Amino acid sequence: MAERITKRSEDFSKWYTDVIIQAKLADYSPVKGCMVIRPNGYGIWEKMQQALDRMFKDTGHKNAYFPLFIPESFIKKESEHVEGFSPQLAVVTHAGGGKLEENLVVRPTSETIINAMFAKWIQSYRDLPLLINQWANVVRWEMRTRLFLRTTEFLWQEGHTCHATAEEAEEETLRMLEVYRKFAEEYMAMPVICGVKTESEKFAGAVRTYCIEAMMQDKKALQAGTSHNLGQNFAKAFDTKFLDKDGEWKHVHQTSWGVSTRLVGGLIMTHGDDSGLIIPPKLAPVHCVLIPILKKGADNEAMVARLKETADLLSPEITAVVDDEAEHSPGYKYHEWDLRGVPARIEFGPRDMQAGQMVLVRRDTGEKRAVPVEKIKQELTALLNDIQNNLFERAKKFMEDNTHTVNSYDEFKEMLASQGGFYKVHLDTSPETEKKLQEETKATVRCIPLETEKEPGKCMITGKKCERRVIVARAY
Amino acid sequence: MAERITKRSEDFSKWYTDVIIQAKLADYSPVKGCMVIRPNGYGIWEKMQQALDRMFKDTGHKNAYFPLFIPESFIKKESEHVEGFSPQLAVVTHAGGGKLEENLVVRPTSETIINAMFAKWIQSYRDLPLLINQWANVVRWEMRTRLFLRTTEFLWQEGHTCHATAEEAEEETLRMLEVYRKFAEEYMAMPVICGVKTESEKFAGAVRTYCIEAMMQDKKALQAGTSHNLGQNFAKAFDTKFLDKDGEWKHVHQTSWGVSTRLVGGLIMTHGDDSGLIIPPKLAPVHCVLIPILKKGADNEAMVARLKETADLLSPEITAVVDDEAEHSPGYKYHEWDLRGVPARIEFGPRDMQAGQMVLVRRDTGEKRAVPVEKIKQELTALLNDIQNNLFERAKKFMEDNTHTVNSYDEFKEMLASQGGFYKVHLDTSPETEKKLQEETKATVRCIPLETEKEPGKCMITGKKCERRVIVARAY
Repeated sequence: MAERITKRSEDFSKWYTDVIIQAKLADYSPVKGCMVIRPNGYGIWEKMQQALDRMFKDTGHKNAYFPLFIPESFIKKESEHVEGFSPQLAVVTHAGGGKLEENLVVRPTSETIINAMFAKWIQSYRDLPLLINQWANVVRWEMRTRLFLRTTEFLWQEGHTCHATAEEAEEETLRMLEVYRKFAEEYMAMPVICGVKTESEKFAGAVRTYCIEAMMQDKKALQAGTSHNLGQNFAKAFDTKFLDKDGEWKHVHQTSWGVSTRLVGGLIMTHGDDSGLIIPPKLAPVHCVLIPILKKGADNEAMVARLKETADLLSPEITAVVDDEAEHSPGYKYHEWDLRGVPARIEFGPRDMQAGQMVLVRRDTGEKRAVPVEKIKQELTALLNDIQNNLFERAKKFMEDNTHTVNSYDEFKEMLASQGGFYKVHLDTSPETEKKLQEETKATVRCIPLETEKEPGKCMITGKKCERRVIVARAY
Repeated sequence: MAERITKRSEDFSKWYTDVIIQAKLADYSPVKGCMVIRPNGYGIWEKMQQALDRMFKDTGHKNAYFPLFIPESFIKKESEHVEGFSPQLAVVTHAGGGKLEENLVVRPTSETIINAMFAKWIQSYRDLPLLINQWANVVRWEMRTRLFLRTTEFLWQEGHTCHATAEEAEEETLRMLEVYRKFAEEYMAMPVICGVKTESEKFAGAVRTYCIEAMMQDKKALQAGTSHNLGQNFAKAFDTKFLDKDGEWKHVHQTSWGVSTRLVGGLIMTHGDDSGLIIPPKLAPVHCVLIPILKKGADNEAMVARLKETADLLSPEITAVVDDEAEHSPGYKYHEWDLRGVPARIEFGPRDMQAGQMVLVRRDTGEKRAVPVEKIKQELTALLNDIQNNLFERAKKFMEDNTHTVNSYDEFKEMLASQGGFYKVHLDTSPETEKKLQEETKATVRCIPLETEKEPGKCMITGKKCERRVIVARAY
């Protein structure tokens, strides 16, 4: 039997680590702050990559690859950018047995090195829009790390685009935010709030940062993806210009946007339960495990053969695995596959064979029911669909139930301390007020939501006039 | 019009670079020795990855991800390994604003960091075989670099496996060599010789290195993939052990194997011609370009609409693109798409529309023929198949025609200098003899081929007895 997983109610943070280690999703490495993504975890990331990559291509983007190393002088060209990233850089000073003339930074993000290339490639309005995406590893030196959520090295995709006008850049920024929302909600079954970051929370070098924010089961917020309108900041720093139709040279308008392996952490904390991981069917490397209830004296071979036929029948739409190893009991196997989060299970014993049925068990609710063998593909297809929807609805209800509207700072502080959650409040989004908020409550402004209507009010801390409510929460 | 491409006969090396730059496959970056892979080149690498990844999974391997950084002390644990890689390492000495306690090496390959994890994960014979693959970037500091063929940073996959016995490790090493051969020949249409490396050419830390060697159009050899039997060298250095069925603790037997973005260079140099790249259909991001011959007074809209219908009809089996931009002539477009290596083209003008036909042009031979519109999918499918085969047969004949059997060192030197190519010779494979060969002729032993029969003879340099012929050539 696997070791006990700490209960969520007991220690959510320990539960999270237990699930990752015991389900073999990832492991600590001997390199400080860097993790190893094991096959069970990488399989989920691969499914995420496939879905996102299709969505990026469907919106006209192409993949490319830029160098891991960035000359130190490049990072320094955009002033806000260097200020934002300086404390986090890993620096190569020696290579090939000697000291380098110029230090090389390991990319924390690629705006600068990419702009050096864009400046070379872009000449005319005909070269625009330029729509590029990169799948890559990046490094940001972190003091406190956490598996998947915050690691020194992580895997991500970073989109980088150039446009002729500010309007087109803004459209692109919002288009990719919508791609992220759709991916989070329709694939990860993780409801999100779309919003814009305040001045103090935006990307170092951006004009405006949009984000999707999700609520984890401990009611803390997870920033799950960001889409930046970079304006002409990097274009001016790198002189990325084009000859427009009107015969004038103009700086391009740019965007960048990214999601990372942090999403795997988000998936775990949105859906997991005290038995382990629950993977939404659309991202599950294995949809269904088929487990024979082997018994002495029973026709075990026939049982296993029938399950293998069934797995073949289910393929390729449904990825099914027959777990027929003889060393462990069915109960042990149920527990192991539950831990790994496989959305559906088929149990099949001698009596089921006789009755021409299989027992279908869903991971999200534990519900069991017998299904005639000939209907198994149809029923399982419907079940997986239902699990996908149920996970989303359940998480959505959880987020709604734990989002509160409050008007006084005292009430906010008391509620946040006693029950956590998201708070719709009036807050003036000056750096000073946000700093005070964070120091006094450990909460931050997650975003100014895009969908809410204007609702004038007074900042709960300073009393200054505000046009609309913002979302405040403690966050990862 | 694109600039002129240097003819292969004039300067093969310049031709190679011209094709890459003008077809926008890759570009030089501001970071010494590092290149940028542009969308046209990355698209080919993505197709390679998909095909290889499927083959790895079909042979039971799973993907995982290990840290980019390796503690310097790890690299030093296997003595041959550190000696082989030391001159090529890039070293991070500072991070997060301070000097590191222990320097971190940017991985040149991952045997050492992976063994640190394997030693933790493997306990029992039940944990074996462990079959892992990683898609990653690696860094080897190079003095002289060349786009795709030798760059400081490159993309690759590295397989790492552990087995209970030496026999199983050897089987795995050969299984993956066969995967590489199959991929090279059936996808890249690039014939290869499978062989084993001599002592001086094997991987630093391996017991035995197998390889596939291909012949480029300048008759030089390209090592296109390697599969290493690591024996217990790394297992002993990292104490990677398992409790066997017989109750004894034993070190695992390991393999590692890899191919890289170098393959894109191999594809270019195997098939390209003086008009540019030729991509084998199985790896082509675009299979067919459809070009309307727009004319004043003709029903251009109907022509374009017909082509778009055709492209839809061809999908998803055949990826087709309609190039209907109005600014350039059909001739310009033919030239551009030829340069990019798209295997087939459809030309369609007003007269074709009237005749209910399209003109099908193949990239490899330039042959044109009119095909009735209703037969286009069927004909194109057959044509792409034929192009794939033709490219392989053509390259195979080229390799055979330029592989010579010689018995004297003088004859060898004269022929190598005058016509290049591969040479089947008797050579004692001592480091001294190989060093002499390289110094005097710039040629190296590419491999001891697996398929040839024993044929005793005398070393053409030292006169010592040899059991079989080896392949000697100048190489990339």
